[in-house]
Amino acid sequence: MKTSSDHIQDYNAPLEKEQKRQFDFLAESLEKKGLNVPSLLQKIQDLQIAIPSWALGTGGTRFGRFSGGGEPATLTQKIQDVGIIHALNKSSNAVSLHIPWDIPEDYEAIKAVAQSVGIGFDAVNSNTFQDQDGQSQSYKFGSLANDTLAVRELAVQHNLEVIEIGKKLGSKALTVWLADGSSFPGQNSFRKSLDNTFQSLREIYKGLPEDWKMLVEYKPYEPNFYSTVIQDWGTSFLLANKLGPKAFTLVDLGHHLPNTNIEQIVSTLMTEGKLGGFHFNDSKYGDDDLTVGSIKPYQLFLIFTELIAGFTETQNPNPAWMIDASHNLKDPMEDLLQSVQAIKMSFTQALLVDNEQLKSAQENHDVAAAQEILQDAFRTDVRPLVNEAIRQSGGAINALEAYRKLGIREQLIKERGSKTKATGL
Amino acid sequence: MKTSSDHIQDYNAPLEKEQKRQFDFLAESLEKKGLNVPSLLQKIQDLQIAIPSWALGTGGTRFGRFSGGGEPATLTQKIQDVGIIHALNKSSNAVSLHIPWDIPEDYEAIKAVAQSVGIGFDAVNSNTFQDQDGQSQSYKFGSLANDTLAVRELAVQHNLEVIEIGKKLGSKALTVWLADGSSFPGQNSFRKSLDNTFQSLREIYKGLPEDWKMLVEYKPYEPNFYSTVIQDWGTSFLLANKLGPKAFTLVDLGHHLPNTNIEQIVSTLMTEGKLGGFHFNDSKYGDDDLTVGSIKPYQLFLIFTELIAGFTETQNPNPAWMIDASHNLKDPMEDLLQSVQAIKMSFTQALLVDNEQLKSAQENHDVAAAQEILQDAFRTDVRPLVNEAIRQSGGAINALEAYRKLGIREQLIKERGSKTKATGL
Amino acid sequence: MKTSSDHIQDYNAPLEKEQKRQFDFLAESLEKKGLNVPSLLQKIQDLQIAIPSWALGTGGTRFGRFSGGGEPATLTQKIQDVGIIHALNKSSNAVSLHIPWDIPEDYEAIKAVAQSVGIGFDAVNSNTFQDQDGQSQSYKFGSLANDTLAVRELAVQHNLEVIEIGKKLGSKALTVWLADGSSFPGQNSFRKSLDNTFQSLREIYKGLPEDWKMLVEYKPYEPNFYSTVIQDWGTSFLLANKLGPKAFTLVDLGHHLPNTNIEQIVSTLMTEGKLGGFHFNDSKYGDDDLTVGSIKPYQLFLIFTELIAGFTETQNPNPAWMIDASHNLKDPMEDLLQSVQAIKMSFTQALLVDNEQLKSAQENHDVAAAQEILQDAFRTDVRPLVNEAIRQSGGAINALEAYRKLGIREQLIKERGSKTKATGL
Amino acid sequence: MKTSSDHIQDYNAPLEKEQKRQFDFLAESLEKKGLNVPSLLQKIQDLQIAIPSWALGTGGTRFGRFSGGGEPATLTQKIQDVGIIHALNKSSNAVSLHIPWDIPEDYEAIKAVAQSVGIGFDAVNSNTFQDQDGQSQSYKFGSLANDTLAVRELAVQHNLEVIEIGKKLGSKALTVWLADGSSFPGQNSFRKSLDNTFQSLREIYKGLPEDWKMLVEYKPYEPNFYSTVIQDWGTSFLLANKLGPKAFTLVDLGHHLPNTNIEQIVSTLMTEGKLGGFHFNDSKYGDDDLTVGSIKPYQLFLIFTELIAGFTETQNPNPAWMIDASHNLKDPMEDLLQSVQAIKMSFTQALLVDNEQLKSAQENHDVAAAQEILQDAFRTDVRPLVNEAIRQSGGAINALEAYRKLGIREQLIKERGSKTKATGL
Repeated sequence: MKTSSDHIQDYNAPLEKEQKRQFDFLAESLEKKGLNVPSLLQKIQDLQIAIPSWALGTGGTRFGRFSGGGEPATLTQKIQDVGIIHALNKSSNAVSLHIPWDIPEDYEAIKAVAQSVGIGFDAVNSNTFQDQDGQSQSYKFGSLANDTLAVRELAVQHNLEVIEIGKKLGSKALTVWLADGSSFPGQNSFRKSLDNTFQSLREIYKGLPEDWKMLVEYKPYEPNFYSTVIQDWGTSFLLANKLGPKAFTLVDLGHHLPNTNIEQIVSTLMTEGKLGGFHFNDSKYGDDDLTVGSIKPYQLFLIFTELIAGFTETQNPNPAWMIDASHNLKDPMEDLLQSVQAIKMSFTQALLVDNEQLKSAQENHDVAAAQEILQDAFRTDVRPLVNEAIRQSGGAINALEAYRKLGIREQLIKERGSKTKATGL
Repeated sequence: MKTSSDHIQDYNAPLEKEQKRQFDFLAESLEKKGLNVPSLLQKIQDLQIAIPSWALGTGGTRFGRFSGGGEPATLTQKIQDVGIIHALNKSSNAVSLHIPWDIPEDYEAIKAVAQSVGIGFDAVNSNTFQDQDGQSQSYKFGSLANDTLAVRELAVQHNLEVIEIGKKLGSKALTVWLADGSSFPGQNSFRKSLDNTFQSLREIYKGLPEDWKMLVEYKPYEPNFYSTVIQDWGTSFLLANKLGPKAFTLVDLGHHLPNTNIEQIVSTLMTEGKLGGFHFNDSKYGDDDLTVGSIKPYQLFLIFTELIAGFTETQNPNPAWMIDASHNLKDPMEDLLQSVQAIKMSFTQALLVDNEQLKSAQENHDVAAAQEILQDAFRTDVRPLVNEAIRQSGGAINALEAYRKLGIREQLIKERGSKTKATGL
Repeated sequence: MKTSSDHIQDYNAPLEKEQKRQFDFLAESLEKKGLNVPSLLQKIQDLQIAIPSWALGTGGTRFGRFSGGGEPATLTQKIQDVGIIHALNKSSNAVSLHIPWDIPEDYEAIKAVAQSVGIGFDAVNSNTFQDQDGQSQSYKFGSLANDTLAVRELAVQHNLEVIEIGKKLGSKALTVWLADGSSFPGQNSFRKSLDNTFQSLREIYKGLPEDWKMLVEYKPYEPNFYSTVIQDWGTSFLLANKLGPKAFTLVDLGHHLPNTNIEQIVSTLMTEGKLGGFHFNDSKYGDDDLTVGSIKPYQLFLIFTELIAGFTETQNPNPAWMIDASHNLKDPMEDLLQSVQAIKMSFTQALLVDNEQLKSAQENHDVAAAQEILQDAFRTDVRPLVNEAIRQSGGAINALEAYRKLGIREQLIKERGSKTKATGL
Repeated sequence: MKTSSDHIQDYNAPLEKEQKRQFDFLAESLEKKGLNVPSLLQKIQDLQIAIPSWALGTGGTRFGRFSGGGEPATLTQKIQDVGIIHALNKSSNAVSLHIPWDIPEDYEAIKAVAQSVGIGFDAVNSNTFQDQDGQSQSYKFGSLANDTLAVRELAVQHNLEVIEIGKKLGSKALTVWLADGSSFPGQNSFRKSLDNTFQSLREIYKGLPEDWKMLVEYKPYEPNFYSTVIQDWGTSFLLANKLGPKAFTLVDLGHHLPNTNIEQIVSTLMTEGKLGGFHFNDSKYGDDDLTVGSIKPYQLFLIFTELIAGFTETQNPNPAWMIDASHNLKDPMEDLLQSVQAIKMSFTQALLVDNEQLKSAQENHDVAAAQEILQDAFRTDVRPLVNEAIRQSGGAINALEAYRKLGIREQLIKERGSKTKATGL
């Protein structure tokens, strides 16, 4: 199915008046503060968040998965789902493929499908944390870090193939999430594991096209429960520096120990020009992969404050933005619409921060004022502004509501059945 | 396959002399301190740790599972595996079944198998965290706590059936681990969820035979990532008190927030007479379900110190002991042998604590001395004592080594194949 | 000094028009949703948050303290400071005294001072975590839990004296924060410590007037670093139940292990009728005692959502509300004004939750809708409503700004000097 | 006072026989495994742990301090206390001074005192986390990272002075622990703070003698509670790399977020040649500064396993070793004796690891065997070996017991009084 622009306009029509009332009031308030509202609208429109191909189906935990209906069974259907999201929110114009789950059979056909719904191809993702049927070597004890040369070679080869697939689709980045590590003290030599990983990544790096980036994720634990080879930003940063100018660190919000100050990590990486990408989600305990903004919206705002400061104050290239969440309980598309909306709200609030005043408060050690300045932006109800930006782009004033009113899931179930199950986790 | 006593004696023979050398030296040292070595040996022999039926197969995470060979495919095979473990270590004379994974088809046959390898039936475990094929209602949004009456009734009925199965096998306890909770603020009413849970547990409690216990687990998170209905010992204790004298709290070592003082919880529950059972495992981050003693052996010792103190100083009935770990990387039987050995070592170290001296140090606020007294017990290498107790019971001097030397896994693979996959997680 | 109503009205005058513009727009929006704005204003006005006497001075850490100027040196000055806060925000009409730091020399005089600035006396707080000069026994190794009877008796006696002081002032509650615990395994017997504590509290409870409450705090660690006798809500709840109907649990937001779901604890305690009081602050790592709402404003909102639900759906008596923060870097009065404002904003947002819709979403397991309903309230910029409530009560439209514009700290420094140091931590 | 060798020999005499019995048995067991016992004894004797000058007095928390008797009031007395410790355990032949608490008035006299008790001078420590009386600028809002140039200059100057002091005493390293950070979002610019810190450290680095090291500590929080400029090893490492070959990272065991894998950090830093020093202590919650080995002895062993591997497998220069604990409840000297003993035990256990077997298990992915190999070393009761090494060096067989039997604290109280209070925290 495709969501037509007409449907969205029909949905919008009865809401336009109230939207205008709210937007006008907010715009007036912002202009009184000296903000340029048209410029804000433009920036909000420009912010596009990629959708990972594995996020269109229901996720699960080690204790089980409860599938929903109408899930996409093919790559074409996954791209169509991203297309629906983008039609509704005009904010998700790319898909990030996961190999081998999403290897296209016919590249031209897949590209045509994507183009027809306005979707491009973001970073491609390799998978060396699972064995595929008939695989010659097992990743049970690691892949790029494995002590066994043949396993490392297989994992390197897989990553090189992922690059080839990405090249055919127009991707410009390879994301490497390395689950390698150990679950027990003594299982591995930290030193050898790190060195193996570096050597393997260097082989992959050699195969990277000139205009590509390599994005190296870090994560403290899970699926290994004693150590992870790339356990923190420091390790990823160390590797990225050794690899070269095309290698960057990727931050996944859920990949941190309790209480980590993530916004500071973002700032440091941008200062060093090494923040390559972002996986958005939210969490309370570990890598919970919940809807963005559902647990710690203020932290998200603080992170965006750093990102926006970094855009203007550092040489860091624009990072790749992506959702990376697991939709265990909600309709995946509803979950993604909520996540993208949360990102846009935080981004917008961060745009409202009065940086001149903030800088002055900082110089004067006026701690209370600095807090007031940040919270003034955060407390502002920016929904009319975000929704206006989307509306002006042709999207729905309230994308989630539109998704429901237009009966999209019901149609997908009709088309695809209620028992399909998306490939992936 | 069965491990014969002869095989074990053959394995032991060449080790007897060195075992005697070490044991004699340790026994002499302990007797110098006034300890009664024969009594220690008896207590170590008496300690039996149940093996859960789901632990004989390879475990996994949401990211995948890497199966091993020779896994048990049937309940009979699972019980045989427990029999092998018990033959080797003489310390695991019971199995804890998980329903519906392990419903016996022929009760008398299963009981005969168990009896033939010296295994009894410990607590039975219900499962309302997964949907079974054809289930009339889904547990996706909870079971005993679900807002929907029909779901709660189904979950209650399931637990009552588990009791019936346990009765036929000779079990004396029902363990309820309730995954119910929410992954997002607002998803559930805490109040209604707790009340629903209490009402459901009360219905199950009514079906509990007079000489049974109900063991109520708690856990802060996973598989739900915002809230869990029975989030901590306080909630479980509150419910157990309301349910009545047959209801108890069960402590799983992995079910705590970071840095929780678990030994203090054990002490409080025993003081109140409400510690019903224990699930042993180890962890660094969350419910990692690692081999007992592999990460925090000193914490395990401190817990046993409380347990042993509780045995003599409180009215708490003897708790049920069980391993509850996930064997993602190791041979499950090796993992279980290591876990039981770790438990016996901690138990033995705790038996060595000089309680009179400790009490005196506490009364004198002699903090340094109190630490020395505990650490003197912990630093003692008790392996010769534990191994002697097992040896005298007819087990192997080093059960893990014997398992390997006797080629047990190889035989199981020959018998069962290298591609079997145990039912369970 | 005293802040006159005239000064505040002068400050307000030029802001009235913009305040009206914003309030009118918000009121219209809320009324469209069916909310009763006058009733909201009344509820906001009624919410009063007590100020602890120790919070008027600069706080510190074990690494040092950097005092500010104009700190109150006497109890009279402390009460005057609370009076200034209340004059500005009309939301802090009580002070909570800490004994022995704030023992009045002349009760009638102190009451007269308090009355003159519109301040009453909230819960009194005992201190058995420090030794006072010339104390006959030391609390170094515990107070109510101490193994030594004479120490326990001294600590009980102190609490009884605190009650006597509170009676003379019109307090109706005793707050017991017990630092007792241990820093090393073995230092204390958990069991004896808990029993000693219960016996001591029972002695104090006997001295409690009929219309008083005893509020029992819990805390996992600090100043002891291995165990705390009342380590969690479960332990406090257990003690409160044993003590009797006048004993309640007090929740301090900073007294939890990482990632604790505090709102669920609030719900459980209210369901059981045992939530007695609240200490507000915010934190990222431990008991950081930061300004309320400065780190996790969404969590604060979720807590208020539970509190408000508890008010209507449970029999729990109204809890005592108090700030309990440490002002290490900010002007203490500015910090307190920010904290009270944050509490009022969260409270107001929680009042906006559409409980009928939420209940319906919960019954339908509509997780995405439930999130939208909560976040709709949280995302609403309630500042115009809160400020209007304060304005209509005679307070300042922006209390913090008024405090600065009126030059209050400068006057206090002029009156009291720049080197005073408040008693307390 | 001074502890004479004769006193120690008198204490040892009646214990020699039992010590020999235990040592001989252990030595025989170790030699059976192919270990070279004389070489082990030599390595244990060579391990020397510096004592910080601030650790000889009673520590405290923000809630108070409970002093003990006989505390050293002068630098001379502090050095004498270290001398007593060293006389007893022959393992602490250096003191680490804290400036400005320990500025010598007469350098030659202080050096003579130190020499007379066999004590040298380890790293010197600067203090820019507190203001000293009459200081021209305040560190309230930071020192090396402060936005205000004059404050940074003062802090740089202080560090340069500390170097000068160290030069006169024979120190070869400067330890910089930087408390700088923020307690509220917005208080500082992360980017500017980091840059200011780098610029300041560079100025200090310029003043560093050729044969000195600069040791840069990291810490996630406390005394600041939102952010710390050097929040983790990655940030310290980044700075050390930019500063040059004389700059290194210093690891303090208590300066990590919950569940951090510290041993992996040690391994990574040594691989990169940037591990400069170690502050030993233990903790359960935060920077609890408890006795080494009192909470997590297995973690300590794992750290030493990495250190010892790093010594032979990397080019990392030998790190500086120091205790850094806070003695709130125990006699400081007893606490230090326990800590040094715990370090020596962990070190010795790590020396027992069979690295050939471990390497082989790792290459074969034999996870269970790898665990057995490590735990075999950890489970070994090495006390007879450690005590023998100390005894052969002229120290006491049981240093803590000797300290008590010799009545050292009682004599110090007699000499210094029961109400002295050491300078420091």
